[in-house]
Amino acid sequence: MLSGTRVRLVALDLDGTLVDSVYQHVAAWHEALSGCGIALSMWRIHRKIGMSGGLFVRGLMRELGRELDPQVAVELRRRHAAAYAARFHEVTPLPGARELLETLTRLGASWAIATSGAGEVAARTVALLDVPSHVPVVTRDDVAHAKPDPDLFLRAAERLGVAIEHSIVVGDSVWDLLAARRAGALGVGLLSGGYGHDELQSGGAYRVYEDPADLGRHLDEIGIREPDG
Amino acid sequence: MLSGTRVRLVALDLDGTLVDSVYQHVAAWHEALSGCGIALSMWRIHRKIGMSGGLFVRGLMRELGRELDPQVAVELRRRHAAAYAARFHEVTPLPGARELLETLTRLGASWAIATSGAGEVAARTVALLDVPSHVPVVTRDDVAHAKPDPDLFLRAAERLGVAIEHSIVVGDSVWDLLAARRAGALGVGLLSGGYGHDELQSGGAYRVYEDPADLGRHLDEIGIREPDG
Repeated sequence: MLSGTRVRLVALDLDGTLVDSVYQHVAAWHEALSGCGIALSMWRIHRKIGMSGGLFVRGLMRELGRELDPQVAVELRRRHAAAYAARFHEVTPLPGARELLETLTRLGASWAIATSGAGEVAARTVALLDVPSHVPVVTRDDVAHAKPDPDLFLRAAERLGVAIEHSIVVGDSVWDLLAARRAGALGVGLLSGGYGHDELQSGGAYRVYEDPADLGRHLDEIGIREPDG
Repeated sequence: MLSGTRVRLVALDLDGTLVDSVYQHVAAWHEALSGCGIALSMWRIHRKIGMSGGLFVRGLMRELGRELDPQVAVELRRRHAAAYAARFHEVTPLPGARELLETLTRLGASWAIATSGAGEVAARTVALLDVPSHVPVVTRDDVAHAKPDPDLFLRAAERLGVAIEHSIVVGDSVWDLLAARRAGALGVGLLSGGYGHDELQSGGAYRVYEDPADLGRHLDEIGIREPDG
């Protein structure tokens, strides 16, 4: 096999991919929206989790047929952050998440975490995972545009000094998969954020696994192998 | 058109179909399970909402590779009921739910509500919807087996004195759709419980709509029409 086709980088999303936090984010956005007098169904919020906060609020407003008041947008983000912090004690790593990261490290793969979340919240979440300090954690604060723009994954590749081509992006939402395609990377979907299999495949997932544990058992299928493999 | 092929009955699920309560049920089960020392991912709980409580607990245990201790099962249900009650203030009718029920009444359709939930909780939930007192509300307490067994829908048809054939079952989960098929009814899926479109179609949905508002705009597509239509 030509070395040029080996996987160069594995960029992993955080919420719903490595930690079981999507439903807490849904509940926190619902609480924030209700607090601002905005009624929106939980499933519609769920389907927007993982995209950039700015696009998220804009998308919600469009569904409601309202104009986006910048002050309300700021207030929504503030309320969401508070409501999520109040639920953070419920958040745990997904099954197999720590083991998957350990395996990637052991196999000598370059890997990074790339999340649409803000730096402060991401840092608290990453602390649940025992991530080595040299691993890049790229957050909303590091880029001009979060997912589905490709910037987060491009920045992760840049931080590791590798080309994004032949990289794998692992995520639980269609926003991860769309960003992966825009970045020129291969997207792998996980069901652990609560999307359906078909939604992820339609979003461009090359393969879909249940959760980090299931992905960890099938790394060979996506071309991640023992150094001598 | 032969009168024998007219829709005789519309049987509607409650949670996720008429009220926005699935995510609160997911959170309540997660809290109940954690309280009993059982770690289970939110998305796995989500995919089992709507099935009978007995099957639900048994299914979860199977996924965890554990035996079902009857005392733990009772304790789980007690904790879930308490945790759901604590979240009930967040639960609202889904967009268009009240209007859909009013339209069905206006068109002279026989309709009923059929839920895997317990009678007491269902009564509290139905109270959010202004359901006329003559409408049958069939709950877990009324049948030997809840969904995906067909008993709830068969009982609804019996209560209205109509045959289940040419009936329509509206639900947000695959358990509703499987029960509809076993009852010999036509299943219609709604995305408002958070399942993906394809999951509902694979479960046997004849058509899939977003929520009660979307279904209400397309009643003609499933053969429900004005009395002279």
